[in-house]
Amino acid sequence: MTLVPTPIPSPLVDRVAPVVPSTGALRPVPAGDVTLTGGFWGDRQEINARATILHCLTWMERTGWIANFDLTANGDAAPRHGREFADSEIYKLLEAMAWEIGRTGDTELEELFQDLSRRVLAAQSPDGYLSTQFGGPGQPERYSDLEWGHELYCAGHLIQAAVARARTVGLDDDLVRGAIRVADHVVAEFGPAGRELIDGHPEIEPALAELARVTGDERYLRQAALFVERHGHGLLRPGEAEPAYFQDEVPVRDGTVFAGHAVRAMYLAAGAIDVAVETGDDELLTAVERQWQHTLERRTYLTGGMGSRHDWESFGEDDELPSDRAYSETCAAIGSVMVGWRLLLATGAERHADQIERALFNVVATAPDAAGTSFFYVNPLRRTVPGVPALADEPSPRASSSQRAPWFEVSCCPTNTARTLASLAGYVASTDETGIRIHQFAPAEIDTVLADGSPLRLRVATGYPVDGRVEVTVLVAPERTWSISFRVPSWAQNVTLEGPGEVELGDCRIALRGAIPAGETVVLTLPVEPRITHPDRRIDAVRGCVAVEAGPLVYCLESVDAPVGADLAEASVPVGAAPLRGDGDVLALPVAFGASASPTNLIPYHRWAERGSSTMRVWLPLQSDQTIPEGEEAHS
Amino acid sequence: MTLVPTPIPSPLVDRVAPVVPSTGALRPVPAGDVTLTGGFWGDRQEINARATILHCLTWMERTGWIANFDLTANGDAAPRHGREFADSEIYKLLEAMAWEIGRTGDTELEELFQDLSRRVLAAQSPDGYLSTQFGGPGQPERYSDLEWGHELYCAGHLIQAAVARARTVGLDDDLVRGAIRVADHVVAEFGPAGRELIDGHPEIEPALAELARVTGDERYLRQAALFVERHGHGLLRPGEAEPAYFQDEVPVRDGTVFAGHAVRAMYLAAGAIDVAVETGDDELLTAVERQWQHTLERRTYLTGGMGSRHDWESFGEDDELPSDRAYSETCAAIGSVMVGWRLLLATGAERHADQIERALFNVVATAPDAAGTSFFYVNPLRRTVPGVPALADEPSPRASSSQRAPWFEVSCCPTNTARTLASLAGYVASTDETGIRIHQFAPAEIDTVLADGSPLRLRVATGYPVDGRVEVTVLVAPERTWSISFRVPSWAQNVTLEGPGEVELGDCRIALRGAIPAGETVVLTLPVEPRITHPDRRIDAVRGCVAVEAGPLVYCLESVDAPVGADLAEASVPVGAAPLRGDGDVLALPVAFGASASPTNLIPYHRWAERGSSTMRVWLPLQSDQTIPEGEEAHS
Repeated sequence: MTLVPTPIPSPLVDRVAPVVPSTGALRPVPAGDVTLTGGFWGDRQEINARATILHCLTWMERTGWIANFDLTANGDAAPRHGREFADSEIYKLLEAMAWEIGRTGDTELEELFQDLSRRVLAAQSPDGYLSTQFGGPGQPERYSDLEWGHELYCAGHLIQAAVARARTVGLDDDLVRGAIRVADHVVAEFGPAGRELIDGHPEIEPALAELARVTGDERYLRQAALFVERHGHGLLRPGEAEPAYFQDEVPVRDGTVFAGHAVRAMYLAAGAIDVAVETGDDELLTAVERQWQHTLERRTYLTGGMGSRHDWESFGEDDELPSDRAYSETCAAIGSVMVGWRLLLATGAERHADQIERALFNVVATAPDAAGTSFFYVNPLRRTVPGVPALADEPSPRASSSQRAPWFEVSCCPTNTARTLASLAGYVASTDETGIRIHQFAPAEIDTVLADGSPLRLRVATGYPVDGRVEVTVLVAPERTWSISFRVPSWAQNVTLEGPGEVELGDCRIALRGAIPAGETVVLTLPVEPRITHPDRRIDAVRGCVAVEAGPLVYCLESVDAPVGADLAEASVPVGAAPLRGDGDVLALPVAFGASASPTNLIPYHRWAERGSSTMRVWLPLQSDQTIPEGEEAHS
Repeated sequence: MTLVPTPIPSPLVDRVAPVVPSTGALRPVPAGDVTLTGGFWGDRQEINARATILHCLTWMERTGWIANFDLTANGDAAPRHGREFADSEIYKLLEAMAWEIGRTGDTELEELFQDLSRRVLAAQSPDGYLSTQFGGPGQPERYSDLEWGHELYCAGHLIQAAVARARTVGLDDDLVRGAIRVADHVVAEFGPAGRELIDGHPEIEPALAELARVTGDERYLRQAALFVERHGHGLLRPGEAEPAYFQDEVPVRDGTVFAGHAVRAMYLAAGAIDVAVETGDDELLTAVERQWQHTLERRTYLTGGMGSRHDWESFGEDDELPSDRAYSETCAAIGSVMVGWRLLLATGAERHADQIERALFNVVATAPDAAGTSFFYVNPLRRTVPGVPALADEPSPRASSSQRAPWFEVSCCPTNTARTLASLAGYVASTDETGIRIHQFAPAEIDTVLADGSPLRLRVATGYPVDGRVEVTVLVAPERTWSISFRVPSWAQNVTLEGPGEVELGDCRIALRGAIPAGETVVLTLPVEPRITHPDRRIDAVRGCVAVEAGPLVYCLESVDAPVGADLAEASVPVGAAPLRGDGDVLALPVAFGASASPTNLIPYHRWAERGSSTMRVWLPLQSDQTIPEGEEAHS
């Protein structure tokens, strides 16, 4: 295997990226090379920076989750606060802060980071172990509950925070050193000569693989590989859960489809891809890609959401995709971005980026409200009863809200969203042997180097996703022939590409190749006019319905846009009805609540529930002849 | 209020009935007056007697659940076996045995009953308290966990067993005396001057009301009323559950629809009806009837199954009726029989008996296999993957099986089915002021007295539900004018009634009135030819589908009847296709798995999964023009 050379030069400005494989079809254009300049995602990244990160920090002080580290540091046996995995939220927030500091150099945020990092590291034992939940006075023994204790899961998130830190400011950092001590402890405890066990919640796997990439220390990669291989052999005691919940039912390389807890499945898959890529294990890579593909075809919502069941927050069977009971956890969508991005880099297949786009626009963008201070944990495609507003001053139950909540008892989604948005520029583009590939369309400045080291600077201007025109101005370019390639989303028919060069069509992509000089402009036009989408006929929950989409956005009908007193359960769409654009991102569609249909506003799904308590549905029944044939019967 | 006179004469041969209200529109014809003579239910009752009861006894010895009583009796601190509610299974079995002994006078079963009763009562404390889970050495304090401990739930089932015993052999019985001591203890602890609390699982409510009926002791009725009224005031600490789970969200008299845990909802409703009837509380009765009606219209499966969610075994929202994830717990259907029967007796409205029939034929009959020794706990209307056979020698998880299991970790359904089948004759008929009412159609001998004390003897002959002809021969009758009335199921059009008298049509019923003498025969003909049923258009899960029914039986397509290799996910029914009768209870329906349809066998839903691991569906998509209009898009 080939790893990043060690020691890695610091600061790692050319590697400010969420995932940095040492090999693969594509090489990520680092987040540090891409500046999102407003637009759909740039605006959200700013709100994340200005509001969400501090919101999370405040709540974790209020709930005492940060103070847990002080208790552990002081050997204080006072009751700890929060759930067993609360430490991980602090780590995910540290990761978000690290990316954000790397992005903007914000010195006030750096001070907050340093302070939080100090409090965390003060709780670390001399042997590297770090947990506020186990091993302290009056607490259960270390590693006495790997099924439910989340110790290695938390360790994994700490390591990921350190990886972000290393990639933004370098290895000479206290949090990085602390995380390396944690990793060394994990290797000592769970290595080939140690406990042959896994954690009930994967996360340590991708974390260790990424730490190996950052440090060049192969021990971490070997440990990640060991953990990946140990899954599926029944090493955990399932108790009331099924082994699939812990991803312990089938060895990763034998799986055919993702099952069990959706977030766990995604995190393990991410780790398995990292291991496969770094060790050249094509069988393992193919196994994950096979599971991914089947899951996208049969177990993924139109929104890109994953996880059909509240029960154990899990995938359902094939075609089990209820709208009302969709769990579609925000964190599972984030996990799918992690997996899609890794598969894209490893294989070069643009279709993997389709899922990233779908999940980002329709789940990740749905979770936070416009202010960035309240969140959805679950993301159903239908809401049949208006819900009670979430509590403003107390953590909410995770899956009960029909309104976004400021904080949850299990509060993984806010911090997960924060770290994703802070590093989002890292998912925009990659380079291949001949040029640059644009995977996500957003206004941005890109200042990077191509595979041969030649500098490339581009300015991307677009009103995407409402506007399908993506204009790329070349500011600096090699003098040789090079290429700029764009993903063609699966929904996009009749894409056009204009510019000084030869247009080439590839699998789910379109490219311009030539000696495109600085000063030239390349224009991609994607057809984002609204469209009607019909469901796969095997899905019970949406048979006889249609959805409306425009570009990557899934639309919904919210009760506040329906006639007063109308029941969304009675809504239907005339056959042949066509959606039209209204103001901004709003669409209008003829919808009937009785005999005759009238134009009704639809809004992007990601904006629902921002106007108060409401009902909502994405899939709308097609009007049909409701007459029951003679001799047949209606059941009520 | 009027209660049954005390002391009640022993043996209570004229009151061998599951529910004996002191007032109401109808008076039950006791189980002791009705002998099921073979047929659909008589055969099942025999299998229950010969196989199921002993099966349950054997398993509860094997699992150590019965031995828990020995531990408690001996003050032995050795670990107890089974879940916190295991005692209740022994009590439900005692109830089943009591009904069965009352039915047949089986002396061997009486010995087993006595032995089991002795072991149970040996564990009773001098103050009447009886539990193997609380209050013993090393055990939690009595009533320290009313949310989850099921102490009063267990006490309720013990009392119900004693009520069955009192109604079959009289009050002079050890189990009856023991249960009265339990009830006195409950009244002392939870009475007006005691703890103002409820149990997390209702059951004590109907039990105490029934004990009041048996003993004439009004204290038990007052205590039942107190418990009913205490629900819905947030007296329990919900923890991870929602208050609705415990039926503690809304006071019973304020409810509009059943919600939360389906079994809990049914048991509480049964208790509330008992209290309402005995105290003349019409407001309470109306409140329960309102919730029941809404639940039947919007939250009940075609099978009569209740409870849409695996999550907390609960009702869903209106129209949330997924086929694949239907929980439809066997015990919830039994609970619905308890509620329907009580409402029928109280109001005289035959429509309440429709739900009893639907739930009996399609859920209660589905739970046990043909041998009566393995059971379904959940009863989904679609199974998309063949399941792993249940363990033969160990308890199975309750809701994971696609095959019937001999025993469960939570094993409420086998014993609940056993007590229901043993007392089933008690749900067949009632008397009103003018004669007899037949609610359920089964071959039987009925030997009872009418309201005025005049004897009536009938022989019912029928091949129902496959044959719609119900022939009633009058063996003994009053010489005056009397009436025999039959329920007309909601699915039955063009019912005919022939016999010597005047035919009268009522609400969901048809009656013959006259001085019908002994020797005459009355013939009811119900149209049980197979029919196509269309779903309520508001239900997402079955839109665009049809089901096939014949009489009270819901039919299903099981993969063993489909072409080899065919995927039921691809099945569709041509518009206008008509089901035809095949051999016995089998139907044939044209079903397509590709372009063309061919006749395919459907079997009664209650017989599915008897031929090995399979997939199955009740609702079948109608064939439709699958062509997506130009410009519209298919999502895969």
